[in-house]
Amino acid sequence: MLQAVTRLLISIGVLAVASTLAGAQSAADDLDAQRKADLVTAYKILVNEGILDSFGHISVRSSRNPDIFFMPRAMPPALVTQADILELRVSDSQPVDPKGRRVNGERYIHGEIYKARSDVMSVIHSHSQAVIPLSLTAIKMKPVIAQAGFLPSETPTFEIRDVRKDGDRGMQVTNSARGAALARTLSSHPVALMRGHGEVVVGASVKQAVVYAAYVDINARMQMQALSLSRDIVSLNEPELFTPAEFDINRPWEHLKQKTLDDASRAKVDRTQFGLDQTQAKQ
Amino acid sequence: MLQAVTRLLISIGVLAVASTLAGAQSAADDLDAQRKADLVTAYKILVNEGILDSFGHISVRSSRNPDIFFMPRAMPPALVTQADILELRVSDSQPVDPKGRRVNGERYIHGEIYKARSDVMSVIHSHSQAVIPLSLTAIKMKPVIAQAGFLPSETPTFEIRDVRKDGDRGMQVTNSARGAALARTLSSHPVALMRGHGEVVVGASVKQAVVYAAYVDINARMQMQALSLSRDIVSLNEPELFTPAEFDINRPWEHLKQKTLDDASRAKVDRTQFGLDQTQAKQ
Amino acid sequence: MLQAVTRLLISIGVLAVASTLAGAQSAADDLDAQRKADLVTAYKILVNEGILDSFGHISVRSSRNPDIFFMPRAMPPALVTQADILELRVSDSQPVDPKGRRVNGERYIHGEIYKARSDVMSVIHSHSQAVIPLSLTAIKMKPVIAQAGFLPSETPTFEIRDVRKDGDRGMQVTNSARGAALARTLSSHPVALMRGHGEVVVGASVKQAVVYAAYVDINARMQMQALSLSRDIVSLNEPELFTPAEFDINRPWEHLKQKTLDDASRAKVDRTQFGLDQTQAKQ
Amino acid sequence: MLQAVTRLLISIGVLAVASTLAGAQSAADDLDAQRKADLVTAYKILVNEGILDSFGHISVRSSRNPDIFFMPRAMPPALVTQADILELRVSDSQPVDPKGRRVNGERYIHGEIYKARSDVMSVIHSHSQAVIPLSLTAIKMKPVIAQAGFLPSETPTFEIRDVRKDGDRGMQVTNSARGAALARTLSSHPVALMRGHGEVVVGASVKQAVVYAAYVDINARMQMQALSLSRDIVSLNEPELFTPAEFDINRPWEHLKQKTLDDASRAKVDRTQFGLDQTQAKQ
Repeated sequence: MLQAVTRLLISIGVLAVASTLAGAQSAADDLDAQRKADLVTAYKILVNEGILDSFGHISVRSSRNPDIFFMPRAMPPALVTQADILELRVSDSQPVDPKGRRVNGERYIHGEIYKARSDVMSVIHSHSQAVIPLSLTAIKMKPVIAQAGFLPSETPTFEIRDVRKDGDRGMQVTNSARGAALARTLSSHPVALMRGHGEVVVGASVKQAVVYAAYVDINARMQMQALSLSRDIVSLNEPELFTPAEFDINRPWEHLKQKTLDDASRAKVDRTQFGLDQTQAKQ
Repeated sequence: MLQAVTRLLISIGVLAVASTLAGAQSAADDLDAQRKADLVTAYKILVNEGILDSFGHISVRSSRNPDIFFMPRAMPPALVTQADILELRVSDSQPVDPKGRRVNGERYIHGEIYKARSDVMSVIHSHSQAVIPLSLTAIKMKPVIAQAGFLPSETPTFEIRDVRKDGDRGMQVTNSARGAALARTLSSHPVALMRGHGEVVVGASVKQAVVYAAYVDINARMQMQALSLSRDIVSLNEPELFTPAEFDINRPWEHLKQKTLDDASRAKVDRTQFGLDQTQAKQ
Repeated sequence: MLQAVTRLLISIGVLAVASTLAGAQSAADDLDAQRKADLVTAYKILVNEGILDSFGHISVRSSRNPDIFFMPRAMPPALVTQADILELRVSDSQPVDPKGRRVNGERYIHGEIYKARSDVMSVIHSHSQAVIPLSLTAIKMKPVIAQAGFLPSETPTFEIRDVRKDGDRGMQVTNSARGAALARTLSSHPVALMRGHGEVVVGASVKQAVVYAAYVDINARMQMQALSLSRDIVSLNEPELFTPAEFDINRPWEHLKQKTLDDASRAKVDRTQFGLDQTQAKQ
Repeated sequence: MLQAVTRLLISIGVLAVASTLAGAQSAADDLDAQRKADLVTAYKILVNEGILDSFGHISVRSSRNPDIFFMPRAMPPALVTQADILELRVSDSQPVDPKGRRVNGERYIHGEIYKARSDVMSVIHSHSQAVIPLSLTAIKMKPVIAQAGFLPSETPTFEIRDVRKDGDRGMQVTNSARGAALARTLSSHPVALMRGHGEVVVGASVKQAVVYAAYVDINARMQMQALSLSRDIVSLNEPELFTPAEFDINRPWEHLKQKTLDDASRAKVDRTQFGLDQTQAKQ
């Protein structure tokens, strides 16, 4: 078991080293290798933070070709490795080559946001329980903590009923029309809540999207707890909002990564012993 | 200690392998072997999720004989193994052969639901703390999260005072009359809350009942938190509810199983070292 | 480190074995040995449940001499062993022989309750964070969950201001007058909350007091969460309350003990490596 | 991995031993060595309690020279060691010799409080999520639990908008003027909340500041939960407040330290394996 833990820890470590060494290869390929490595680390962090559970996904746009994004096949977030990452087209959210693997039903969230927002390099979709209660009410999420200065004064909430046609069913974003509607709600913001469902968080990098997602959770909890005390709470005003350049995301990224390593040392076992990989492949 | 952990992990792994290999035996016996294996896994998952604690139980109907269901003897849920499983009759909730073991006082919950609902293959009774607060109020649980589309628009709450006759005491479902009354409250639904007590969750399989129980917990928490923000919250409408065929339970089942394996690797010890098995046998 | 864990686990196991073997000795001494063993186990459980933290204490009355009770010296609850247990007199809450060790400043809680209540064999005083919020309001704790049927329809809350004379200071129960006043508030009940401070829980045995304390915590949380949903909540009525004989405490006691063993296997280290025992001795 | 854990545990143990042995050296240097050792332990405790996360810092004043204080370079709190501690001047919050390391942007919190308060020997600034909700409302934190008798009847909340001039931006305390304004809000109290940001907690020693910070968290949670039950809650009155001499902080300090050791035994890995130290150095 210790060997299995060690192996898992080393795999994360190797990714870090891989990123560092990436400068030795050609620039664009390098960047894509680093982006995929960051993507796998992001899965580990977001599972560890309870932001991803059975469902939810992260993607990153290719640096080599902005019409391509990378996203894992349909699988439990906790188990994602580099080998699970597929290439998808921004134009229609379809895989370049599915390699016989099941693609994610809600990949249109990612494709349509990349299409609408050339500034976005990474998209997270999660069922975070921190934001769902707010999404069920008419109350809008507002930035209330110092580290949430990247949020607009009101974060929009996506209502899928506004886009669903007569006879349409379900809350999943399973086609381009729904994805495009979500992208319109997101507009130029970094976050949109999704009523009864979760959220999308976007960033100029995987790291930025992950750090934003972590602070969205804290901000939502603080706002909800404050609202249970008083209807009259203070949110950030204009001089308290910040631009990406004013917020160093490296510190929280490192912090989140280390919390994940700590957790891994405590918890992870060699899943291959239990035939789980085979089970997943069938899903 | 590591050996003990390994042993426990292997025992879960072996169950998985056993299920996979079941196709080599005669069909009905196979199915029953698989159902018992799933039952033991379900105990591990529901303890790990905090849905079962000192009390609570899961059963599964026999595939060989629909008038029989399988349920462990009266014991702490965390310790259930295949050897603890007894056969009980649907007709009167009595054990076919108690083998000298204490049967569970609330087995009538299971028997009476199987009697009333031929579609039900598995029954969970738990004291889940996520649903009890709602059960103490006149507020009904409603589906508010996308994954709770299996719930009716209002989940019924069982009030045992409605069935208790003059002079009767207690809140436990310890006879057929109380069990039948609970089954009537459950009606054709997958879940009924029990005032001040907990819930029953039923499914067409152990896996389905377990996954439903996990999402009932999340749904109840999200509804409660939203209600603390506003009395006016959005619940799922008809096009947002789904049929079992529309919700793939395998992904959350695998997710829950792996969380349990992770936890086991961290926590479980060889209890036989401490004479605990003897203590339990006396209960 | 693993050796340290093993040693700790064995020490708990040995206590269990010691209890079992106690029948071989003279009856009263046996009972006292078993009561002390249960006392140490109770400390481990209540720390593990978050009911005891830096402060709080448990005592047990002697079976040999009802005018004597056993209680550890002043020390962090997590570290209590049999060697730390002192004998105190019920009459004045003073140690028979302090053996140079610091006695607990709030031992009068225990002495005065044993004096007033011949039925009480064990007393717990804790700063449980589950009950403090209720204690700060005019709302009384009521039994709302099926397992809290041992509670009266309203649990009294002790207000130390009612007993403090002009010029007296502080909230601690540091003399017999304060202890006697608390015992009067407790009256014939199993629990009294203490405003802004915590609670006392008493039982006919260490096991009963511990199981009651665990369910008081759950009951308080469920009542508080339900009250945040509605002012109109259902509490247990007379036919739903139970006598001690109607509630088997062995199952929850075993459950709590095993949770503690699990936690120990995960967490405990050999504290003697760090000179902590010496630090404590100085306190 | 076990070796890494052991190494970490020993490093904490060694600090304790170092403190004990300090009496063998010259008095003032000794005291400073002990203060630095306590500072590192304080970081471990406050990270473990969730009071520090990605951000937040603790400092201690030099016993040798009251115009100097010790504070780690800008880095993740979880990783602070004695080697990271820099000397800063009280007069202008600048490092005596930065040794090429990045100093913390909010060091002015510390410098200005030491300048205004000769009684203060240690300053904690944290983003504690326990106090932020209260800070967003007009409700003042009041002492409601017995162990929070060190608090004033109302803890002040710092509003940075009151000090920010036209055109100034941000919520960080990144210059002497902002630090001085915070010190004025703190006044002679041990704690000031900071709206949407966190808190400062000061003490006559590192130990006192840490214990106070831990009880501020509990007090804030208890007050918030009680306020969700009733607007009319009881807070401590004058005879219930205490002076530092009346509250033995050693017990909770030892308790907090041991919880941290427990956690370390469970969680920590050898971070140097993953090149994280290099990553940090770049921040």
